[in-house]
Amino acid sequence: MKLSARNVIPGTVLAVIKGATTTHVRLEVAGGQVITSSITNEAAEELGLKEGGKAYAVVKASDVIIAVD
Amino acid sequence: MKLSARNVIPGTVLAVIKGATTTHVRLEVAGGQVITSSITNEAAEELGLKEGGKAYAVVKASDVIIAVD
Amino acid sequence: MKLSARNVIPGTVLAVIKGATTTHVRLEVAGGQVITSSITNEAAEELGLKEGGKAYAVVKASDVIIAVD
Amino acid sequence: MKLSARNVIPGTVLAVIKGATTTHVRLEVAGGQVITSSITNEAAEELGLKEGGKAYAVVKASDVIIAVD
Amino acid sequence: MKLSARNVIPGTVLAVIKGATTTHVRLEVAGGQVITSSITNEAAEELGLKEGGKAYAVVKASDVIIAVD
Amino acid sequence: MKLSARNVIPGTVLAVIKGATTTHVRLEVAGGQVITSSITNEAAEELGLKEGGKAYAVVKASDVIIAVD
Repeated sequence: MKLSARNVIPGTVLAVIKGATTTHVRLEVAGGQVITSSITNEAAEELGLKEGGKAYAVVKASDVIIAVD
Repeated sequence: MKLSARNVIPGTVLAVIKGATTTHVRLEVAGGQVITSSITNEAAEELGLKEGGKAYAVVKASDVIIAVD
Repeated sequence: MKLSARNVIPGTVLAVIKGATTTHVRLEVAGGQVITSSITNEAAEELGLKEGGKAYAVVKASDVIIAVD
Repeated sequence: MKLSARNVIPGTVLAVIKGATTTHVRLEVAGGQVITSSITNEAAEELGLKEGGKAYAVVKASDVIIAVD
Repeated sequence: MKLSARNVIPGTVLAVIKGATTTHVRLEVAGGQVITSSITNEAAEELGLKEGGKAYAVVKASDVIIAVD
Repeated sequence: MKLSARNVIPGTVLAVIKGATTTHVRLEVAGGQVITSSITNEAAEELGLKEGGKAYAVVKASDVIIAVD
């Protein structure tokens, strides 16, 4: 599947933290940067996300804010 | 200013592409990954975004989709 | 690629309307419902979107508002 | 109330799954497609969402990713 | 129509700035605060947005970042 | 830090409601309007959000829907 989302960032799952309905996923990507995502518990189970597993962070360009110091 | 957004990713501006109302910004971040953002022209001007300048990509955890092969 | 996004809706491309930096895509999905998406021009070209082509509308659960009359 | 959001999709509530602060709502729309939304518990109560009830899934065009096989 | 979105903020249209596919709308809300929205040109026309007209800014709770100095 | 997000709205924290993974924050802004945000528990702790404290609601223009009666 090819996506229109401009940002498809490969990484390794560092942590999968499950809440009542929402799961937080930490992904280590290039350069040691960590990206946090919040997804539904159902999605986390369906994708079989496990520490050490390979995954991508997918972000639409319109969801990226730019900041400067 | 400290942000609740979990993803504040430092990088260098590669390109600033202005449209009628929307500007696309390309940021090179760690590991050579490129992040694309779409912001308003007004914001791009206000932030004085220039090729080679330092900037951050800011993404809320709830805007990050996780994908697996 | 499997996605955490809960909504992956198959459809047929009805229209691809290109702007200065942003393209609007109309997709006809089941029951004749039409879904509109706005993506970058680059993405529209990369995906080779054409009228009559098959595509999916992908929406994160956290981006869906519920309304009642 | 008329909305700028391009996607206002009528459906029937299939399930309302309440978490600690977030509720997941499943809506069956035309063609048997199911749309999942995550909203606040407060919103779910205020809207009086019940299985079998009528509701709409509202999605902004800029929140719709397009994917192709 | 009642919405699950927690933020429905009444205001007066200050400006409607049309681009190739995207329109920027400025709304003055209570206390003189100005809220900017970007919507499709089609939506702006359909809603008949005019300077001085009444409108609401609608924002989902999950799209609001919190910041502190 | 300067942000591309067009809407940076100052206010006072009214309430901080913690769930399993997600915290809801209520902010009173000008004119008595209340803005609700949902952020990660981690973010709420990191920002030290407390009732009566000063904070900003930050919203990207592309996340603001416009509605009319």
